[in-house]
Amino acid sequence: MGGTITVNYAMGEEILRRADGYAAEADRHCGTLRARDLPYTGWVEYASRLTDGELAEIKALAEVIRRKCTVFAVIGIGGSYLGAKAAADFIDGGRGSKREKDAPRLVFAGFNLSGSYHERLIEEIRDEEICICHISKSGGTAEPSIAFLALKRLLTEKYGEAEAGRRIYAVTDAENGVLRAEVREKGYKSLVIPADVGGRYSVLTPVGLLPMAVAGIDIGQVIEGAKASSAPALMRAAKRLACVRRSIQEEGKTVEVIGAFEPFAAAFTDWILQLYGESEGKDGKGMLPVGVGLSRDLHSLGQFFQEGNQVFCETLIDIANPPGDIVVGADGGFYAGKRMSSLNAAVRAGMIEAHRSVGVPIVTVGVTDASAHCFGMSVCFFEMVCAVTGLLMGVNPFDQPGVEAYKKEMMRVLRRES
Amino acid sequence: MGGTITVNYAMGEEILRRADGYAAEADRHCGTLRARDLPYTGWVEYASRLTDGELAEIKALAEVIRRKCTVFAVIGIGGSYLGAKAAADFIDGGRGSKREKDAPRLVFAGFNLSGSYHERLIEEIRDEEICICHISKSGGTAEPSIAFLALKRLLTEKYGEAEAGRRIYAVTDAENGVLRAEVREKGYKSLVIPADVGGRYSVLTPVGLLPMAVAGIDIGQVIEGAKASSAPALMRAAKRLACVRRSIQEEGKTVEVIGAFEPFAAAFTDWILQLYGESEGKDGKGMLPVGVGLSRDLHSLGQFFQEGNQVFCETLIDIANPPGDIVVGADGGFYAGKRMSSLNAAVRAGMIEAHRSVGVPIVTVGVTDASAHCFGMSVCFFEMVCAVTGLLMGVNPFDQPGVEAYKKEMMRVLRRES
Repeated sequence: MGGTITVNYAMGEEILRRADGYAAEADRHCGTLRARDLPYTGWVEYASRLTDGELAEIKALAEVIRRKCTVFAVIGIGGSYLGAKAAADFIDGGRGSKREKDAPRLVFAGFNLSGSYHERLIEEIRDEEICICHISKSGGTAEPSIAFLALKRLLTEKYGEAEAGRRIYAVTDAENGVLRAEVREKGYKSLVIPADVGGRYSVLTPVGLLPMAVAGIDIGQVIEGAKASSAPALMRAAKRLACVRRSIQEEGKTVEVIGAFEPFAAAFTDWILQLYGESEGKDGKGMLPVGVGLSRDLHSLGQFFQEGNQVFCETLIDIANPPGDIVVGADGGFYAGKRMSSLNAAVRAGMIEAHRSVGVPIVTVGVTDASAHCFGMSVCFFEMVCAVTGLLMGVNPFDQPGVEAYKKEMMRVLRRES
Repeated sequence: MGGTITVNYAMGEEILRRADGYAAEADRHCGTLRARDLPYTGWVEYASRLTDGELAEIKALAEVIRRKCTVFAVIGIGGSYLGAKAAADFIDGGRGSKREKDAPRLVFAGFNLSGSYHERLIEEIRDEEICICHISKSGGTAEPSIAFLALKRLLTEKYGEAEAGRRIYAVTDAENGVLRAEVREKGYKSLVIPADVGGRYSVLTPVGLLPMAVAGIDIGQVIEGAKASSAPALMRAAKRLACVRRSIQEEGKTVEVIGAFEPFAAAFTDWILQLYGESEGKDGKGMLPVGVGLSRDLHSLGQFFQEGNQVFCETLIDIANPPGDIVVGADGGFYAGKRMSSLNAAVRAGMIEAHRSVGVPIVTVGVTDASAHCFGMSVCFFEMVCAVTGLLMGVNPFDQPGVEAYKKEMMRVLRRES
């Protein structure tokens, strides 16, 4: 195991020089974070403080679930599911969770209110052995609450109420909220979301670790990778990237296009979108984080990137040693004998050259491989980049006051109609 | 059958008034388009000019393929696959292509150079009965060419060269390009991409119609819907939306967030992203089109939308009668007895209220249902909106000169390394 993260910058000297000016402030913010001198910084070095006993408790619960089911339905929205989905897709290119033929399959629900989606999902899993897990700090958010009701009904119809109760799990606040109250009343098995960790920073707590372990991912390795992220070289790299992102904003860039050249990293990109968007998008500030899949989107948005309105910068995630490959056959003409991964690297180099030539600032975050170790390391790396960038921008990277607005309006609409 | 499209605007009066000023020019552009007085406007009313014989030819080829395979691998990138994927996912919420239990499953390849992706895909389909279809005007684009090599090898190993050749299909230019040359040499069955239709406007030509028909979609209904889009009321609505989008750009908005409240419409959103991005993103102009899934992304990007940098407008796609639903059970408290689709509508209304209150201009495009008919109608509607908007902006909505830049740089990198 091992692996590391390296960052490369393809952009004007002026942006990098201006970033230097933020270095001392970034050091200070990083120190404050590592001392956990701010609320909701429980995620900082959480991995280092996780005890063997706590890790064993998660693994033991996962083992119980693994013996019971062929499908594990994770019910959550935003930070309650994006991290687990990112891990399941990313680690070993999705095989981390499929190494054993009989590992339960993860499915996700409750991140929308589509009746079509949930009707189809229920139809698809109805004949499987099912366990479900509601992941929510409060239990009160509309989308997952309603999906939870639908899936509980499926379990009750299928197994009867008593056995259904033994197939329902919860990850929620230790004390408060309607989900904790239901856990107490019904006796579901549950794990705790630490009070000092916000949703989008919670993937390496039971929120993400339980689904990962159920899917057969080595969560010990994920945690080892997370610990390794506090090495001085990685901390320096994270602070530097935060300073550069802060500096890019001063160029007037209002969009950060983020993407990888491997489809298995798409959900990891989605996780970063929430992390950055919810942490930095406030007080009228921030760059709108936009996800792309590459090279796919060079054939859809590529025209815009090359010659359209230059309002954006790019962050590319490069997995140096992807977990699968194909060699082009002898009938491949110019491509004969080449590995697809090396052609993919040439596409990346070509894109960077082409976009740099028209002035797009480009950051490449290189990750050694798609191991559980590198996943844990990358999560902590981006969390630190995000928190430091937010503090450099003068916003609170740990709250999300604007998320409530549509919920309030939604409830107003429903009450009017009732 | 039937159905229609209605557009609603939630934005400042000033934007709508300014849009009025573009109405006469939009009329003129629409007239020019319908007279096909510009190059690459073969897509305009293509459906009306498609003969019964041409439609029958596509259906007949699809029937041959359907009898031969359980998996139909569509190899293409950008406009060569986005439309077919949009249709397969959208129509009847994905059931349009799954109505019969034994309809071949569509899989897509060649839209990236990920060795992991293609290795996994081949592993997954290896034991199926396979036909493949390479869709490309030239046949020279790197991503699909290389995937085509890999899948041809799979077929040859599995069936021998002669039978492999009978399982390979092509949709390409009538005369030119390396794929047409290979078709001639090897005798693959093929269909023609009309010379006067660009990739992103080609979904209702054989490019999209063949995969749809193989998947079991009623392409006659798709074409009927396309024809219905030229009704005066719909033409007026398309021109009006183009004028409003042009006007919104003058507000300094640089991003258009586009999304639906149904996951089955996600690929349709992706198709719009290419259509808008490649048509309008040139000469330093255009709004970057950004796809979202709702309400999912209100719990990731929602904070940014509510309180972040207000550089964007929103286009919401609302399917009035989605093809599936769930009723919340009696244990659902406040939600008990409500249909999930009505709760979803309340979320949409809540989002519009919340975002309008902070000044986001919001367009809602309402589509009656997810039928094949409404799909065909919606495709033509958005194509007309896009082309008229581009002409109002003073760009050519039918070229894509910038897409070549990264390909040239990629080939330079590969030659240097060889």
